Amino acid sequence: MHSKMITGKFIVIEGLEGAGKTTARETVAQILRAHGISDIVQPREPGGTPVAEKLRELIKQRIDSDPLTDKAEILMLYAARVQLIENVIKPALARGAWVVGDRHDLSSQAYQGGGRGMDSKWMASLRDSLLGSFRPDLTLYLDISPEQGLERVRSRGSFDRIEQESLAFFTRVHERYLKLVAGDSSIKMINAAQPLAQVSDEIQRELKQWLEMSGFEKKNV
Amino acid sequence: MHSKMITGKFIVIEGLEGAGKTTARETVAQILRAHGISDIVQPREPGGTPVAEKLRELIKQRIDSDPLTDKAEILMLYAARVQLIENVIKPALARGAWVVGDRHDLSSQAYQGGGRGMDSKWMASLRDSLLGSFRPDLTLYLDISPEQGLERVRSRGSFDRIEQESLAFFTRVHERYLKLVAGDSSIKMINAAQPLAQVSDEIQRELKQWLEMSGFEKKNV
Repeated sequence: MHSKMITGKFIVIEGLEGAGKTTARETVAQILRAHGISDIVQPREPGGTPVAEKLRELIKQRIDSDPLTDKAEILMLYAARVQLIENVIKPALARGAWVVGDRHDLSSQAYQGGGRGMDSKWMASLRDSLLGSFRPDLTLYLDISPEQGLERVRSRGSFDRIEQESLAFFTRVHERYLKLVAGDSSIKMINAAQPLAQVSDEIQRELKQWLEMSGFEKKNV
Repeated sequence: MHSKMITGKFIVIEGLEGAGKTTARETVAQILRAHGISDIVQPREPGGTPVAEKLRELIKQRIDSDPLTDKAEILMLYAARVQLIENVIKPALARGAWVVGDRHDLSSQAYQGGGRGMDSKWMASLRDSLLGSFRPDLTLYLDISPEQGLERVRSRGSFDRIEQESLAFFTRVHERYLKLVAGDSSIKMINAAQPLAQVSDEIQRELKQWLEMSGFEKKNV
């Protein structure tokens, strides 16, 4: 008997700074490997290709003589995203690999839409014209309050142009995240305010449930 | 009697590789100085701000492992353009300076629209949503055949990612330039196939005529 043919899926980890996305991405990869999925690509956004990583640097950098305009910021984010989708994610999915991304389009909706207050209709039309119907199969949104997230980030030391934003900015981002998550059944919310072990447990529960629902059973390895 | 108040204007030099844009920009600046205009800003596109110059590098670079997609290319071009307009051109015009640019939006219409074959309506809507009604006051389009332009460029030595494009590509760009120039009275066509001295004479005639029409008379300096 043939085992179910494994085809690539695109899973995204989302959330505020300090929500624990890096650890969560590793947890997801471990669970996938336990399901016999070994070809796993783990890009971060913005970034994940040579061009996109250079754009990331430019976006994160603060240049006082040439402050990044909101419009240039979102154009650069989409330039990086298009490069990543076309040159990394789509080829990976096509060969059957799974992609576990740190941030994707939801971040732009939350940060540029919510945080910067860019027009949602304009953003939706930009996204649709650039990405078409390409969307993650599953998004795990790690929910944490801006206060707690920033506290974690700031204990790490130096922070970049985005991390330097005000609490008010991250509060708007957080509110927009919650609104977007509520309206999209492909996004699962994880309580990231819990201790790390419990966050991992919750991710495991959600992911296993989704894998079963999608027809991927754990292999006995 | 007061002399006419001088307010800033935005003049753009356009044309194919090898059309002589750098020399033309200098010619224009000289004529403006002869009219008593001393505060002249001369940005090039893509570029002209720290962020935009870094984007220029990325756009011109050829990375075989991560070929630049058409969409990422145009997003980066507009990111650079928005930075230049907001942080350089608009502040310059506001203080009464004149801006003489090497390339502007017409280049994207010709290269990405004509050369790459991107959808014109999509491009127009992207431009309008990003630039609003901001347009050059005068564009001098230096017309040269792709064959002659490329010959001049190639005699310079090494060439970048754009200059490596095929003759067919530049022929499409040229055709689109001609079409756009025919439909816009703010663009003056200069025959750039002539010897340099004659090109300069023609630029001088066109610019002086436009300056007179716009009410700028030559000062006796």
